Amino acid sequence: MSPKITTELLKQLRQVMKSPKYVQEPVQAYIVPSGDAHQSEYIAPCDCRRAFISGFDGSAGTAIVTEQHAAMWTDGRYFLQAAHQMDNNWTLMKMGLKDTPTQEDWLVSVLPEGSKVGVDPFIIPADQWKRMSKALRSAGHDLVPVKENLIDTIWTDCPQRPCKPLITLDLSYTGVSWRDKIVALRSKMAERKVLWFVVTALDEVAWLFNLRGSDVEYNPVFFAYAVIGMNTIRLFIDGDRMTDPAVREHLQLDSTLDPEFKIQVMPYGSILSELQAVGAGLSPKEKVWLSDKASYALTEAIPKAYRYLTPYTPICIAKAVKNASETEGMRRAHVPKGTVTEIIAADKAEEFRSQQKDFVELSFATISSTGPNGAIIHYKPVPETNRTLSVNEIYLLDSGAQYKDGTTDVTRTMHFGTPSAYEKECFTYVLKGHIAVSAAIFPNGTKGHLLDSFARSALWDCGLDYLHGTGHGVGSFLNVHEGPCGISYKTFADEPLEAGMIVSDEPGYYEDGSFGIRIENVVLVIPAETKYNFKNRGSLTFEPLTLVPIQTKMIDVNLLTQKECNWVNDYHQKCREVIGAELERQGRHEALRWLIQETEPLIRVQ
Amino acid sequence: MSPKITTELLKQLRQVMKSPKYVQEPVQAYIVPSGDAHQSEYIAPCDCRRAFISGFDGSAGTAIVTEQHAAMWTDGRYFLQAAHQMDNNWTLMKMGLKDTPTQEDWLVSVLPEGSKVGVDPFIIPADQWKRMSKALRSAGHDLVPVKENLIDTIWTDCPQRPCKPLITLDLSYTGVSWRDKIVALRSKMAERKVLWFVVTALDEVAWLFNLRGSDVEYNPVFFAYAVIGMNTIRLFIDGDRMTDPAVREHLQLDSTLDPEFKIQVMPYGSILSELQAVGAGLSPKEKVWLSDKASYALTEAIPKAYRYLTPYTPICIAKAVKNASETEGMRRAHVPKGTVTEIIAADKAEEFRSQQKDFVELSFATISSTGPNGAIIHYKPVPETNRTLSVNEIYLLDSGAQYKDGTTDVTRTMHFGTPSAYEKECFTYVLKGHIAVSAAIFPNGTKGHLLDSFARSALWDCGLDYLHGTGHGVGSFLNVHEGPCGISYKTFADEPLEAGMIVSDEPGYYEDGSFGIRIENVVLVIPAETKYNFKNRGSLTFEPLTLVPIQTKMIDVNLLTQKECNWVNDYHQKCREVIGAELERQGRHEALRWLIQETEPLIRVQ
Repeated sequence: MSPKITTELLKQLRQVMKSPKYVQEPVQAYIVPSGDAHQSEYIAPCDCRRAFISGFDGSAGTAIVTEQHAAMWTDGRYFLQAAHQMDNNWTLMKMGLKDTPTQEDWLVSVLPEGSKVGVDPFIIPADQWKRMSKALRSAGHDLVPVKENLIDTIWTDCPQRPCKPLITLDLSYTGVSWRDKIVALRSKMAERKVLWFVVTALDEVAWLFNLRGSDVEYNPVFFAYAVIGMNTIRLFIDGDRMTDPAVREHLQLDSTLDPEFKIQVMPYGSILSELQAVGAGLSPKEKVWLSDKASYALTEAIPKAYRYLTPYTPICIAKAVKNASETEGMRRAHVPKGTVTEIIAADKAEEFRSQQKDFVELSFATISSTGPNGAIIHYKPVPETNRTLSVNEIYLLDSGAQYKDGTTDVTRTMHFGTPSAYEKECFTYVLKGHIAVSAAIFPNGTKGHLLDSFARSALWDCGLDYLHGTGHGVGSFLNVHEGPCGISYKTFADEPLEAGMIVSDEPGYYEDGSFGIRIENVVLVIPAETKYNFKNRGSLTFEPLTLVPIQTKMIDVNLLTQKECNWVNDYHQKCREVIGAELERQGRHEALRWLIQETEPLIRVQ
Repeated sequence: MSPKITTELLKQLRQVMKSPKYVQEPVQAYIVPSGDAHQSEYIAPCDCRRAFISGFDGSAGTAIVTEQHAAMWTDGRYFLQAAHQMDNNWTLMKMGLKDTPTQEDWLVSVLPEGSKVGVDPFIIPADQWKRMSKALRSAGHDLVPVKENLIDTIWTDCPQRPCKPLITLDLSYTGVSWRDKIVALRSKMAERKVLWFVVTALDEVAWLFNLRGSDVEYNPVFFAYAVIGMNTIRLFIDGDRMTDPAVREHLQLDSTLDPEFKIQVMPYGSILSELQAVGAGLSPKEKVWLSDKASYALTEAIPKAYRYLTPYTPICIAKAVKNASETEGMRRAHVPKGTVTEIIAADKAEEFRSQQKDFVELSFATISSTGPNGAIIHYKPVPETNRTLSVNEIYLLDSGAQYKDGTTDVTRTMHFGTPSAYEKECFTYVLKGHIAVSAAIFPNGTKGHLLDSFARSALWDCGLDYLHGTGHGVGSFLNVHEGPCGISYKTFADEPLEAGMIVSDEPGYYEDGSFGIRIENVVLVIPAETKYNFKNRGSLTFEPLTLVPIQTKMIDVNLLTQKECNWVNDYHQKCREVIGAELERQGRHEALRWLIQETEPLIRVQ
């Protein structure tokens, strides 16, 4: 992987930062966040502005360019990757390390007095704008919205915004009709005494209307906003997608519905002016509900006194708790229905996945990495780095797919030869952490971040750790990363875990220059049986939905407790039963033999 | 314990809430927080306004009185106690339960339109003012400062503010002189580019000047503020305490010092006007550093543009990391140097403690509780509830003292007869949690809240839990509860644990109406030895400073792992060695025999 040469691009950007054509006054710094106007984690190629200007294309990062400097903030998952992809024009700011300045502190330290810092108001979330604007103002600088995106002005071959056909999902997949979802949403609005709700996150629009798209790779979403009133529904969406008869039928666009379920379709680009019109027409006490992560531009469209902002929207919370149809779908999606260089292995995995019933696309770029590439946490193989799998190196495969009945995400770490004692030791600690979370029992109302240390305890005891969270929420044929729950030391504002939520359990260990280990299952939050049941408060635990053998060759059985050993054996027994039965039914005897061999019970000698 | 009858008091309060003598306009609600003007946790009798108006005298709680309602917010430690102490005029708001409204939400639900909500601006911290004011304003109400405290106007027999003599601490106790502490503080101020620092917390004033007092029971502090400039030191303190020659000598009040170490002594009550004068004289870029928990009144004295607010002050952070003299003092304070109703037992414990060298006072009200009283987490025996210790009930003793060389806090739970299998089971889960924290190894930079779940895991597995945090910071001959570190699921903004910090490790289990169990040691954060040492990031663990046997009769040995069993045996061995040697030296043979018997090694049959 050679770095992108950005000298010329930075020169052009610094010119437009001073050009009266684009800015009222010159800006001394320009912020390039990684999001799009919907604060999506995964973004369309036309929104990859930070990757365009810097070369660094990981999923998280913020670039800031001043007249003299160019700096990139990213987290532990991407330290290695960013260092490889950026040239010497860039300074890497390693977030989470003690001596790394925040963006605000760094700006204050490098800017001349009374500077203006520009940012695209559609890309920056309102909460970030507020924090940064305050910090800059108190140091005598100003954060200013720059309407025209300055990266777009120099990005001559910027791809078009995608506008792909939609998929309609019927009740057998979603369990609840879009009309019933609107009814439930309006009742939440009435509870909070708000008159309008603005849907800005792409997966929330998709979930609300039981529609899916493919505008963003891996995430089955489409570019749209919605504004829901107590008697009106406005959907802002472009292209001829609303002429598709299946979509018209699904949304009942041509039926003479109760007026409160009549969807008004409007151009995607008209959201700002429509929202400004809503804002201008409000009387005192009439409120508009927005996520506090909605863009600064849309948030500003509603006068401050009329805004009702929350970190998690009612759609986000409803979406996280999967109903019976969705849970059953997720179970089906994890069972087969239908080996090498890193790329061939990844392609093969995709090929196998694509033969499954209800397959739509991958849920993220497959991470197929061997040896030292495994230590790059979000590594994606490309021809320059492609390594041959060997019997001497650990191989890590993190892959997932979008099926109409669910979203999968699984990581397994394997050795095709004889692993070293140290590799087995590290693998076994990671496994102990995986089991500690998966088997944890905890009272109703517990937030996921309180479970994060369980995953690390065995590693910590030996002085090892990993620089990422332990788990993320998983959507139901939606984004593979979704809020409001997760298992991470980094979050505190997560919502409590509830039966029906689905998260990943994926501790790891990464040895720079040598190997990477991660063991990941998607798990469902379920009620637990306990002796005393928290005085009827109720208990929760996890049920693994992913059923893929964990390579026993990598396990140092003597580092496991009997309880942990039993967990592995019970898990493998379940893999045999559920997956084995399906393989048998399909007549896939070779695969079945492999499964039986890989799920032989562990025996602990003690 | 019979509840306080508050009908007449509430009537009087509601009258002054409308009286033009005290309020510019009538207030429809009045908030009575539990703090004093220094946001102390433990407060002097004259500041116990919330206890006076409601009867509930726990350490945490906020009362709000409206024309129709009176409501009290408190946390899980106090649900039972508050319910016992308050009459029917009061509604108990159980914080931490899902359906309990926040104070703001409740106010909005009960207040008539356009209400005014009053509060004493000296008692409410600035961050709370901001949050509450914003929430009320967005619902059309106003939070207003009421200069005269309305409780004081109806509290006819309110005690005087204490003004007790001071104790000076020399270098052998503190390790660092107050001049060197001022030098270090000024260097932190220079780093942050602030010109002034306002010391508002009582323990921070005491620590900075190496002085102690006894104005507040259990906390060796005195009523004072300080304002530190780059060349000036102002100490706001009342009474003739500055005429004590020892204090004058300690503070070098009469020597011709370098002017930047000359302390100007001013009346306690002049802090507001002096601070306003400082605020009025500032030029742009001249900042004043305050805790964001300082009172609204003092914070408002500095114009907004000149304020530099942080959650933890540099004094709070420096104070938490104990130096060698302080750590050695803490060790000494935990070793003896010189058993019935609940009250007699508590008195006896105090008597024993008071015979120790360097004893000053208790560090908190001894919790001496037997049987069902043990389930009242912050129970303090009084004649109406006093129970006789028996061989049939569990006895819980939580006691601590202030010594000139350190502060102690220890809880042990005992049975003088034969505990039931259930009592032993619960005790053993609590012990497993205690050990899990005490023996935990974690990387440098870890925040204490990430360890909280370790203490609960064994209880959770059986469906049991406890409604309080696992540990708090402990001062060095200072407050027994101090920031910025701790071990609690409730905090996220705690500072990372560092070698030299001292916290408590005190999981528990409480069975309403039956018994209470808690096992508490004070532990010192120390570097740990690990196999791989986190790639030189370094590891930490805890060393117990408390050395008191844990009753083995209460332990179900078969519920312990071999590792846990070893921990108990090693701990008891250390008790024998350190405490035994001292008892032997003092010729206390009966105590020594008891110690030997109580520290017999556990043997696990398996």
